[in-house]
Amino acid sequence: MKKIVKHDQDVIRQHNKQMILDIIKEKRPISRAEITKITKLSPTSVGRIVGELCEQGLVRETELSSGGVGRKAIMLDIDPQAVFSIGVDIGKKIVRFGVMEFSGKLLYELPVGHTAIETEADRTIDLIADTINRLVKEQGLDRSKLIGIGIGVPGVIDHERGVVQYSSTLGWRNVPLAAQIKERTGIDTVTDNDLKVKILAEYLCGSARGSKKTALIELGTGVGSSLIIDGEIFRGGSNSAGELGHTTLDPNGNLCECGKRGCLQTYIDESAILHEANRIVEIGDIGQLFEAARSDESWAKEIISRTSLYIGIAINNIVCMYNPDAVILSGNMVENYSDIVSLIEEQCAQVVWEPFRGGFKILASDLKERSIVIGAASLVLNNYVNQS
Amino acid sequence: MKKIVKHDQDVIRQHNKQMILDIIKEKRPISRAEITKITKLSPTSVGRIVGELCEQGLVRETELSSGGVGRKAIMLDIDPQAVFSIGVDIGKKIVRFGVMEFSGKLLYELPVGHTAIETEADRTIDLIADTINRLVKEQGLDRSKLIGIGIGVPGVIDHERGVVQYSSTLGWRNVPLAAQIKERTGIDTVTDNDLKVKILAEYLCGSARGSKKTALIELGTGVGSSLIIDGEIFRGGSNSAGELGHTTLDPNGNLCECGKRGCLQTYIDESAILHEANRIVEIGDIGQLFEAARSDESWAKEIISRTSLYIGIAINNIVCMYNPDAVILSGNMVENYSDIVSLIEEQCAQVVWEPFRGGFKILASDLKERSIVIGAASLVLNNYVNQS
Repeated sequence: MKKIVKHDQDVIRQHNKQMILDIIKEKRPISRAEITKITKLSPTSVGRIVGELCEQGLVRETELSSGGVGRKAIMLDIDPQAVFSIGVDIGKKIVRFGVMEFSGKLLYELPVGHTAIETEADRTIDLIADTINRLVKEQGLDRSKLIGIGIGVPGVIDHERGVVQYSSTLGWRNVPLAAQIKERTGIDTVTDNDLKVKILAEYLCGSARGSKKTALIELGTGVGSSLIIDGEIFRGGSNSAGELGHTTLDPNGNLCECGKRGCLQTYIDESAILHEANRIVEIGDIGQLFEAARSDESWAKEIISRTSLYIGIAINNIVCMYNPDAVILSGNMVENYSDIVSLIEEQCAQVVWEPFRGGFKILASDLKERSIVIGAASLVLNNYVNQS
Repeated sequence: MKKIVKHDQDVIRQHNKQMILDIIKEKRPISRAEITKITKLSPTSVGRIVGELCEQGLVRETELSSGGVGRKAIMLDIDPQAVFSIGVDIGKKIVRFGVMEFSGKLLYELPVGHTAIETEADRTIDLIADTINRLVKEQGLDRSKLIGIGIGVPGVIDHERGVVQYSSTLGWRNVPLAAQIKERTGIDTVTDNDLKVKILAEYLCGSARGSKKTALIELGTGVGSSLIIDGEIFRGGSNSAGELGHTTLDPNGNLCECGKRGCLQTYIDESAILHEANRIVEIGDIGQLFEAARSDESWAKEIISRTSLYIGIAINNIVCMYNPDAVILSGNMVENYSDIVSLIEEQCAQVVWEPFRGGFKILASDLKERSIVIGAASLVLNNYVNQS
């Protein structure tokens, strides 16, 4: 039995409000009549919702001629600086911060080095809280307009309670991150899985704009994925759908950091590739591998070829399970060494199940290393509009 | 931008109607007041919706004492035979038919042998249409109450247009099945992927009742999967999510019927298992393999052990991608040779990614070989209520 209860009426109202706000953001300035035309809502509903948005200070009226002859129409625009949010991306070696204004524009960005895996979670939490407190002060941000902090974290995240249940990248277990950051900054905080906010960012303002069902594969220090369907993040039963890196290819394969053998990430994450290369030549990063391949060194070409084969397999497997209309490839390797993308596409022509070939696009991430900060900050702005 | 437009109001109304109908079906007989209490809808809304259902002839009033002292309350009950639907399950060797009354009860079942792969699609379509026409006549079904036929088909199905785009099991490509059955029977027909209607059946009246996010793995002539989230079938971009059998484990593995190498189903579908067994001892079916294992023959025990390992991997991979709270195992092998289930559970303790262990249940299919017929017939009943 579908559990549809009365409060769905509220959900619809919130969705309509979000929709109108998105239209104003996109077409600014725009008249009430045009919004009515686009949304097919009644003029009364549009008027009521616009009234609410004006009262909240998110939208304001501006008097402008609307093109043709005749009297001037009252146009609507957002107040781009009505409110702000802060996005945080906790990576393995860098914590990125960003301040986003209500329009969705990132005003300020700050990467800070850290060494999560070698220190206690508390040290990273201190670093984040201190940086935010400093940033608010230095940038002269109006705390009354600062509506929240959003944090993207690699791992299994209970986004409802704001707890990092498990992060192998950071070496964390059961860290009540959102509560601790709120305690030390006084600012409401939400946290979510990094790839879930990343796909949200690509959907809102990146390469997934206009796609209805987009999957994202992250290739980096680990391998993960996420999916967004008609603007809704696909979460699974406990917000942990998309653990592509720990799907098993070979029960006798290489040992993964998780304790299992033959996880997909042991074929294509950066440490696996470097480990493979270092059997032959000592190199410190992926860049040297691609350099060697460009110098026609056969060991490097072989490793890149094998990597692209297994990335092709990862694409096949995600397409078989999710049947998306687009797959975004993101992460250091595909973003900075684009030589590999055409090799991956060649492999896909072989290793993708035939009925799916041609049925989806392979896209690069538009937002690259800024995507998690943007997604995390957007999450806060979206929540604010929906809760108000 | 979320595409939420005005017609969502209708969606809510339909959901509420479906919810009330489901409650009446479950608690029959029940009073309006009790429905109001359960749904938290306003008495006015409940009254209006119940009125609609009565007008459609789906629900009727019955006068009954409601337990305690005092005046008799007017109770509501469904009319179990208000309408009927026919469910059809096209398998590789058997086409199953079932007549379902409005209460969800299967009144009549009929399996008919066929040999899809050796004949034209037209022959199977003739068989289905002729059988339904005969069945309607012989069973004396009232055509005015027969609201539709639902057909579950293995393969890639365009459920919106009623077209079988690709079915390797049946050897079909681009067969406009729904239109052809409607033409030959005069009865509205819908068609959908067999595992998608199967999980619907398990959700409505089988082992997935009460689960919020249930995945199903089918192990049979091929391997497939499906997912239902809060009562909604997970479809992906073109209704083809869940092609677990064609996810790749090993690019150098055995050749699959799809033309790729190392597809998951080449490890665990029945033909793969029989092929493996026949290297050692000539056997004709899975039953002989399990018999040999019970007689302690080591080749048989080894094959069953390896199969349970790879089924464990299939479970890990679906749990990683979908993060369900339950996984239903279905198909001949797990349903008829339950010896293997405890072996699979043992393997899961090793091969499932650690953060997911204990986070989901492994269930057997309750409805077994009747599940597709039930799901297909239910699809028609659900559509009818929603469209009326």
